[in-house]
Amino acid sequence: MINGKIANLIERLYAGDQIAAAKLITLVESSDQKEDVIQAISNRTGNAYVVGITGSPGVGKSTLTDKLVKKLRSLNYKIGIIAVDPTSPFSGGAILGDRIRLQKHSTDDGVFIRSMASRGHLGGISTATSDGVKVLDAFGCDYIFIETVGVGQSEIEIIKNVDTTILILIPGMGDEIQAIKAGIMEIADVFVVNKADKDGVGRTVLEIEMLQNLNDISKYRASIQKVIARDNIGIDELVKKIKDHESHLKNNDLFHKNRKKRLEMELKQSIHDKLLKKTARIFEENYELASLIDDLYNSKKDIYSAANSIISQIVK
Amino acid sequence: MINGKIANLIERLYAGDQIAAAKLITLVESSDQKEDVIQAISNRTGNAYVVGITGSPGVGKSTLTDKLVKKLRSLNYKIGIIAVDPTSPFSGGAILGDRIRLQKHSTDDGVFIRSMASRGHLGGISTATSDGVKVLDAFGCDYIFIETVGVGQSEIEIIKNVDTTILILIPGMGDEIQAIKAGIMEIADVFVVNKADKDGVGRTVLEIEMLQNLNDISKYRASIQKVIARDNIGIDELVKKIKDHESHLKNNDLFHKNRKKRLEMELKQSIHDKLLKKTARIFEENYELASLIDDLYNSKKDIYSAANSIISQIVK
Repeated sequence: MINGKIANLIERLYAGDQIAAAKLITLVESSDQKEDVIQAISNRTGNAYVVGITGSPGVGKSTLTDKLVKKLRSLNYKIGIIAVDPTSPFSGGAILGDRIRLQKHSTDDGVFIRSMASRGHLGGISTATSDGVKVLDAFGCDYIFIETVGVGQSEIEIIKNVDTTILILIPGMGDEIQAIKAGIMEIADVFVVNKADKDGVGRTVLEIEMLQNLNDISKYRASIQKVIARDNIGIDELVKKIKDHESHLKNNDLFHKNRKKRLEMELKQSIHDKLLKKTARIFEENYELASLIDDLYNSKKDIYSAANSIISQIVK
Repeated sequence: MINGKIANLIERLYAGDQIAAAKLITLVESSDQKEDVIQAISNRTGNAYVVGITGSPGVGKSTLTDKLVKKLRSLNYKIGIIAVDPTSPFSGGAILGDRIRLQKHSTDDGVFIRSMASRGHLGGISTATSDGVKVLDAFGCDYIFIETVGVGQSEIEIIKNVDTTILILIPGMGDEIQAIKAGIMEIADVFVVNKADKDGVGRTVLEIEMLQNLNDISKYRASIQKVIARDNIGIDELVKKIKDHESHLKNNDLFHKNRKKRLEMELKQSIHDKLLKKTARIFEENYELASLIDDLYNSKKDIYSAANSIISQIVK
């Protein structure tokens, strides 16, 4: 059950209080009250449209997010942003700059910005971001952006939880397109070629198209938008392409199918996490563990019999 | 319970029949009878010394394994080899050549060779290799080599299951040493610098030593052996270094500690796999799943309540 403090925070969340939103995200990120919060707000979720923005460092993710936010604010949409930072100390400087660029929206009540480190969450970063999205959804955001730095496995897990994925590339990334092809090219719904005033923009577009031609033609073909984010060029067209993808999903019965598939994945992940915790607790509480391992070591028992006997303690 | 066919195979295994060994490995790799086999042979395991051999493609893993086997056969040891192949189609040719190099031992009753593809196993490749090791152990092998191509996450998982890990490098791999440092350098017990007649061998040794100096000094310092595997140079010394590491483990109370730690990991992995299978079965059998997801989608239920109610069906 939720306590009075959480009930009060949720009331303030629904009233549009940014500080309450921030505190609730902290609770779902890293406290035992995570489940209580999600349970309490779940009947206010499912309304926000979630957009993932990803790409290698230096392609201009936060400049683009900044310009997208400006445009969507001018249309009176309420915006949430979750920016996932790698835990690596090496990219600290760049990320700091990015965050400062975005923070100028922070005096605007219609924009909520949150950074999350990619490590140190109960149940992992992809659970933390999808719980964070639920808080911002209940907060009344129309669009929620999840910005990830890099294109590793955990970023792909995060991006699986969005409605539309934007992958940003820049001219002269030919090799990189090849390299990231395997993991992320197939989950992009909109390709953005940023810094489109640079040499090689045509070639980058061509390379994306060539990769698309290699793919299953029955699949949705991602659109490609050239932008110069710094100069606000191509942003209106990009917003239109995001909306086009949303229409495509909704007109083809895919919007609710995708969301249900994601809910099933989330459910399985949550069950998985809970079972592992339960097992870890059994191991900790079981004072016989050392002697069990001794039996295994001395070949008095085998792994599978031991596993079955422990499972019989856990499972019905 | 084991059936007559398996009982017969195990009897032949103990009598030294290579065909029975091969059939039993196939059973533990990919059949429902895996647990029965492991249970039946477990009281005959724990005697073999297990050596992992790893390194990037082209460093000469199978040439080195070939020469090590020749040397150990001359000392009358019985040898088992499990060669893990990536499933990738790209490296097919190289692997074929490697395997042919090793197959010349296959007329020798004292050498058993088995290839395993890295995908397509019940419970993953690291479970498959450790079950394969158990069969070869019960077969009476004194030394079992696990050779892995590449140094990815699944190779590291495999290598965690051995007593001594050999990491092979060749001169001119400076950048690569930096790159693989994070994952695998710290689990090497013996570094082999192969092709030691090439330029840059001294530098490679120096780079290994520099990396070692960055590490915790309380840790066992891996030895370094220069070899020219092709010409059989340095092989006697390498066998001595493997035995030195074995002595180090045994004299410092680490041998049984490490094995017990591995058994605990194996046990946890096995419990984990079984719980996941159980969950998947509950999902399949539960005709309510679609309506449950509908409830999630329509915000009538939240993920965590749904997860808890499914877990209550599984867990005591």
